Amino acid sequence: MSGGVTSLLDATAKGVFVIAPTPFREDGRVDDASIDRMTDFYLEAGCDGMTVLGVMGEAPKLDAEESLALVRRIVKRAGRAGIIVGVSAPGFAQMRGLARNSMEAGAAGVMIAPPNTLRTDDQVVTYYRHAAEAIGPDVPFVLQDYPLLFQVVMTPAVIRRIVADNPGCVMLKAEDWPGLEKISALRAAQAVGEMRPISILCGNGGLFLDFELERGADGAMTGYAFPDMLVDLVRLSASGQRDAAQDLFDAHLPLIRYEQQFGAGLAVRKHVLKRRGIIASDAQRRPGSALSAKARAEVEYLLARLGRHDSRARLAAL
Amino acid sequence: MSGGVTSLLDATAKGVFVIAPTPFREDGRVDDASIDRMTDFYLEAGCDGMTVLGVMGEAPKLDAEESLALVRRIVKRAGRAGIIVGVSAPGFAQMRGLARNSMEAGAAGVMIAPPNTLRTDDQVVTYYRHAAEAIGPDVPFVLQDYPLLFQVVMTPAVIRRIVADNPGCVMLKAEDWPGLEKISALRAAQAVGEMRPISILCGNGGLFLDFELERGADGAMTGYAFPDMLVDLVRLSASGQRDAAQDLFDAHLPLIRYEQQFGAGLAVRKHVLKRRGIIASDAQRRPGSALSAKARAEVEYLLARLGRHDSRARLAAL
Amino acid sequence: MSGGVTSLLDATAKGVFVIAPTPFREDGRVDDASIDRMTDFYLEAGCDGMTVLGVMGEAPKLDAEESLALVRRIVKRAGRAGIIVGVSAPGFAQMRGLARNSMEAGAAGVMIAPPNTLRTDDQVVTYYRHAAEAIGPDVPFVLQDYPLLFQVVMTPAVIRRIVADNPGCVMLKAEDWPGLEKISALRAAQAVGEMRPISILCGNGGLFLDFELERGADGAMTGYAFPDMLVDLVRLSASGQRDAAQDLFDAHLPLIRYEQQFGAGLAVRKHVLKRRGIIASDAQRRPGSALSAKARAEVEYLLARLGRHDSRARLAAL
Amino acid sequence: MSGGVTSLLDATAKGVFVIAPTPFREDGRVDDASIDRMTDFYLEAGCDGMTVLGVMGEAPKLDAEESLALVRRIVKRAGRAGIIVGVSAPGFAQMRGLARNSMEAGAAGVMIAPPNTLRTDDQVVTYYRHAAEAIGPDVPFVLQDYPLLFQVVMTPAVIRRIVADNPGCVMLKAEDWPGLEKISALRAAQAVGEMRPISILCGNGGLFLDFELERGADGAMTGYAFPDMLVDLVRLSASGQRDAAQDLFDAHLPLIRYEQQFGAGLAVRKHVLKRRGIIASDAQRRPGSALSAKARAEVEYLLARLGRHDSRARLAAL
Repeated sequence: MSGGVTSLLDATAKGVFVIAPTPFREDGRVDDASIDRMTDFYLEAGCDGMTVLGVMGEAPKLDAEESLALVRRIVKRAGRAGIIVGVSAPGFAQMRGLARNSMEAGAAGVMIAPPNTLRTDDQVVTYYRHAAEAIGPDVPFVLQDYPLLFQVVMTPAVIRRIVADNPGCVMLKAEDWPGLEKISALRAAQAVGEMRPISILCGNGGLFLDFELERGADGAMTGYAFPDMLVDLVRLSASGQRDAAQDLFDAHLPLIRYEQQFGAGLAVRKHVLKRRGIIASDAQRRPGSALSAKARAEVEYLLARLGRHDSRARLAAL
Repeated sequence: MSGGVTSLLDATAKGVFVIAPTPFREDGRVDDASIDRMTDFYLEAGCDGMTVLGVMGEAPKLDAEESLALVRRIVKRAGRAGIIVGVSAPGFAQMRGLARNSMEAGAAGVMIAPPNTLRTDDQVVTYYRHAAEAIGPDVPFVLQDYPLLFQVVMTPAVIRRIVADNPGCVMLKAEDWPGLEKISALRAAQAVGEMRPISILCGNGGLFLDFELERGADGAMTGYAFPDMLVDLVRLSASGQRDAAQDLFDAHLPLIRYEQQFGAGLAVRKHVLKRRGIIASDAQRRPGSALSAKARAEVEYLLARLGRHDSRARLAAL
Repeated sequence: MSGGVTSLLDATAKGVFVIAPTPFREDGRVDDASIDRMTDFYLEAGCDGMTVLGVMGEAPKLDAEESLALVRRIVKRAGRAGIIVGVSAPGFAQMRGLARNSMEAGAAGVMIAPPNTLRTDDQVVTYYRHAAEAIGPDVPFVLQDYPLLFQVVMTPAVIRRIVADNPGCVMLKAEDWPGLEKISALRAAQAVGEMRPISILCGNGGLFLDFELERGADGAMTGYAFPDMLVDLVRLSASGQRDAAQDLFDAHLPLIRYEQQFGAGLAVRKHVLKRRGIIASDAQRRPGSALSAKARAEVEYLLARLGRHDSRARLAAL
Repeated sequence: MSGGVTSLLDATAKGVFVIAPTPFREDGRVDDASIDRMTDFYLEAGCDGMTVLGVMGEAPKLDAEESLALVRRIVKRAGRAGIIVGVSAPGFAQMRGLARNSMEAGAAGVMIAPPNTLRTDDQVVTYYRHAAEAIGPDVPFVLQDYPLLFQVVMTPAVIRRIVADNPGCVMLKAEDWPGLEKISALRAAQAVGEMRPISILCGNGGLFLDFELERGADGAMTGYAFPDMLVDLVRLSASGQRDAAQDLFDAHLPLIRYEQQFGAGLAVRKHVLKRRGIIASDAQRRPGSALSAKARAEVEYLLARLGRHDSRARLAAL
C-alpha cells in the first residue's frame, strides 16, 4: 500500500483496494484454491489492499464460520497488504463479533454500510456512533456511502459529523451518484480545517474514476475485473499524465459500463475473472444471477475490442 | 395449543401464539430468570405457543450464540407448547443455520419475513421458494406478511402461490394493514379448493383482532402486554359470544392503540410487562427506545382506567 | 374559529379544522348539493375551519377547473370559517397557480405536503423554502408532517428550521406516528424561545388525539366522520375535564380505529357520512376503494354499539 | 420517422425520438426562440420524432397553460415528425386533460410513467388500464419502464399484460437497468406470439444503446446532447456495421457516461446544447441544478477529446 496500512488502516491509505468476490465451486462450497490464486493475482497486480465480504463478496450468503475462515485465509495469504472486512449486519451484536474476530485474525480495518431504513441526518449519524461503539474504538472503519444501493443519502455535512464523532472513521468509500461534487465539497472542508483528513477511495465500479481522482480521491475501491488497469490509472493520474490516464480509462470504459448492471454486474465480473484464469468458477450462491449466452457473447466482444488497446484483455479463445 | 403443535407446527394451529420480547438486564445481558418467569406466565395465561426472535424480540441485537441459547432455554421451559423461532436473516446460510439448530433444540417451526428489497410478485415467490429450500423441507414455517414494516406487498394470489409451492408453509402471520379483506379472500380461496388450508394468526398488535377473528383468522400472534386478554377474546369469539368479546376488546383498545407506536411500542410493552411483574427490566439493547416521563404517566393512566374493567390491569401503585 | 382566522390563517388557530372529502355523484361528477350540505353540517357541528383538497379530498382526481370551483363554492358557503386548501403538486408552477387562485377566492391559507422523494434534512428544508417562495410571502401555509404516507421524515429540528425560514408557516399538521414526543419537543422548543409559536393540529384520523391535546396540540385536523365529537373532545380537554374527554374518546375509538385502514379508510368515512345523511353518495373517483358487504356490516355493528354512548351515532335502520 | 408516425404513433415506429428539454430564459420564462431552433436542429439531425414534457423536459415545473403552449408550438414547427407528450400526473383527471388537448393539437401520442407508489404486479397492470381508459382508446401511448427513477419494477410478464390489456399501448420506453435481458425476453415472447409487436425505444441516456439495438430495440428515446450521433448509430447498427457502430459509440461513451449523473445530468445536457448553439441558455426552473466550474471544465475536456473523433464536437473556444 502506498503509505497506508502496515498493521492498521489509517487516513493516509491510497491506491487500489480491490473489492474481492468470494469464489465458489460449482457445488456452492467456498473455493479455497481460487481464493489463494485471486489473492496472489491482486497483489501482483499492484493492489494496495483488498476488501472482502462486501456486497460483491456475497457476504450475507456465508455463515459466520465461513466468513471468518475466509478472512483468516486471505489475511494470511496477503501478508503485508491491508485487508478490510465488510461487517455490515442487521444488528450490532453480529457486527461486533465479526469485527473483533477479523481484527484478531489480522485485518487492517472494517467497512460498515448503513441499513436501508435510515432517513434523517440524525439517524445516520447516530447509527455510526452506535456502530463505532459496538466494534470498539481501536478498530478503524470505512464509511460506505452508496445511496443508489442502500437508499440512504448522506450529505457532506453528515459525513463530516460522522468523521468528527468517530476517530475510528479513517476512510470513505465514495459511491454516491453523482459523487464528483461531494468529493470536492469534502476536500474543501478538509482544506479549511472543517474536517480532519480522511482517505477517500471510490467505488461505483470505477465509472467515474477518471474525474474522481482529479477531484481529490486517493484511489479506487472497486471490483472491476481489471484491477491491474485501475492500478495503472491511479498511478498515471497521480503523476499528472492526464491524457494518458484518460486514454487508458476510455479503452476500458465500454466494459466498465457493462459491469454496471445491478444484479448482472457480479456475474460479468466473475465471468471475466474466470476467463482471465484467476478464479475457477463464476458460480454464485443464491440468490444469484447468471449470464445468458447473449451476454457472454457481448462480454467476449468487448474483451476482443479491449484487447486491441490493452494486452491484458487478450484472452485465450473459448 | 388447541389442536395444533405436538412436536411440529401444522396448519391446524389456533389460539394465541404470543410474540415474546427478549428480556435484558439493565447492563444489557440476556436475563434468564425473566425468560423463565415470562415463559411460565405465558403458559399459565393460556397461550398455545410462543414466537421468539421476531421483530419485537430484538432478534438482530443478539449474536448467534445468544439466539440459540434463548431458543433452547424457552423450548425446555415451555414443554409441550409450540415455540416458533424467527429466522429472518440477510442471507440463506445464516437462516438455515438458525433454523436447523432451533429445530434440533425442539422448536415447533420457524417464521420468515421477506427482505425489504423485494418488489415484484415473482421476486416474493422466488424468495420463499429459496428460503424453504434453505431451511429444508422438514421444517414448518410461518409466512410473515407485514407490509407496513417490511415494505413488501403480497397479494392474496402471491400468498396462494407461496402456499402451493412450499408444503412447509403451514401458517400466515397476517399483519397487512388493512388486512380484513385479505383474510376473507384467502378463506374464500380455501373454501373453493384454490388453496390448501393454512393457519392464520393475526399480528398488528391486535388492533383489528375483533374483526379478524370473524373474518376467519384462527387466533392471534402478537405481543400485546395482556396476552391473557387475547386468550379470553379468542375463546369468546370462537364460542360465538360476539358482544362479550367486543366489550372485552373495547376495554383494552385504548392501550392496544397506545402500543401501536412504531419504535415506542416495544418500550410500552416491556414497561407494562415489568409493571405486571413478568420481566425484571424494560431495558432494550441498541438501537432502542425508552419511555419519557410523560409517556409512562400516560400508560399508568390507561392502566388505571383499564383496571375498572379488567382486574388484571389493577397493578400496584408505583 | 376559536381565535384564529378572520381572513388569513395565523398561529393562534385552534379547535377543529375538519378534512373535507370531495363528494361525488354516482356518475363521477362533483356533487355540489352535497358540498353545500356538508359545509353547513361542519359549521353547525362547531368546526373552526375546513381543509379541502387534501389526501382524503381526492385532490389529484380533480382537474384544475374542478379544484378551483370547489374552493370557491366552499369558501362562499362557509362564510367566516377558515378554509385551508391543499396545494401539494409535483411542481411549483402548479402549486403556485392553485395557491394564488385559492387565496383570491377567499381561502384562509394552504397546506403543503412534501414529495415522497425527499430524504435529507437539507432537502426537506430547501423544498419548503422554494415552495414558500413559489406561493408568495403573503400566503399562510400549513406544514404537513405525515411520514407514514409520504415517506418523508422530519425531525423536530427540521420543523424548527422550516418555521424559522418561512414566516408564512403558521401551522403544523402533526401526523407523524408516533408523534406524541414530537409535539412535546416542539412545544418545549417554543417555550424556551427556540421556535416562534405555531398552531399544531393533529391528523392521523384522531387515533391519538386524547394524548396529543395533553401534549400541547391546539386541536384536530382530521376527517373522522363524527367531527362533532372531535369538537366536544377538544372542548372537554381544553377545560380540563380529562376523564370525561377520555370517556368520549374511548366510546368512539373502535370506529376511529376502523377508519385507520389505508385505502379503505376513505370508503368507511364516506359511507358513514352518507349514513348520517351528510353526503348523498359514497362514490369515489378512480383509483378508489369500495366497502365489501362484510365491511359495511362491521361498520353498522360499530355504529350500533357507539349509539349506546353517543346519540349522534343512532342512525336510521338500513 | 422511418416508417412510424404519420399522424398517430404506432408499433412500427423506429429510429430516434429525442427527449427534448424545455428551454428557459435566464429569468425563468419559456424560451420560444430556442424551442424553434432546437426543433429545427432535431429534425435536421434526422430524428424521427420528439418527446416533450418528460422528466428531462422539467414537465412538473410548467403550469397547464405553459405545457399546452409548448406542445402546440413544437407540433406546429415539427410538421410531419411525430411528437410524443409526457402526460404523467398525480391523477387521471389532469392526465386526461393534457392528453386530449395534446392530441387535438396534433401530437402523435403520449407517454405515461407509473407513480412511484405502485408495488405489486396487479397494481401496475390496473394503473395502466385506468390510465388508458382516462386518456381514451384512440390515444396511442408509450409505457415508460424506468425503475431506477420511479421505483416501480415491471417484469416482462407485467409488460405483456399491459400490452394485452390496452390496444393503445404501442411502444415501450425501455430504461430498466439492466435491461438487455428484458428486451430479449419481450422480443422472444413476441416471436412466439405471446405478445403483439410493439416498438421498443431505449432510454437510460443511451448508456447501453450499442447492445440494446442488437437485442432487438427499434431505436433510442433519449436526450443525449448529440442526437445526430444517435441517428448515425441506429443506422449503422440497422445496416449491420457492428464495428463501425461500436467505434462511434465508444467515442461518445465518456460523455454519455458523464451525462448519467442523476440531477446533474440535465445540467450537463443543457450546457452542451447551449455550447452547440442549439438553445440560448442552460437555465432550469426550481428545483434545478447547475454545473460547477470544475464540472464545466470536465465537460469541455470531454468535448475536446470527442472532437478528435467526431467533428460535431468541435465547438468554438469559450
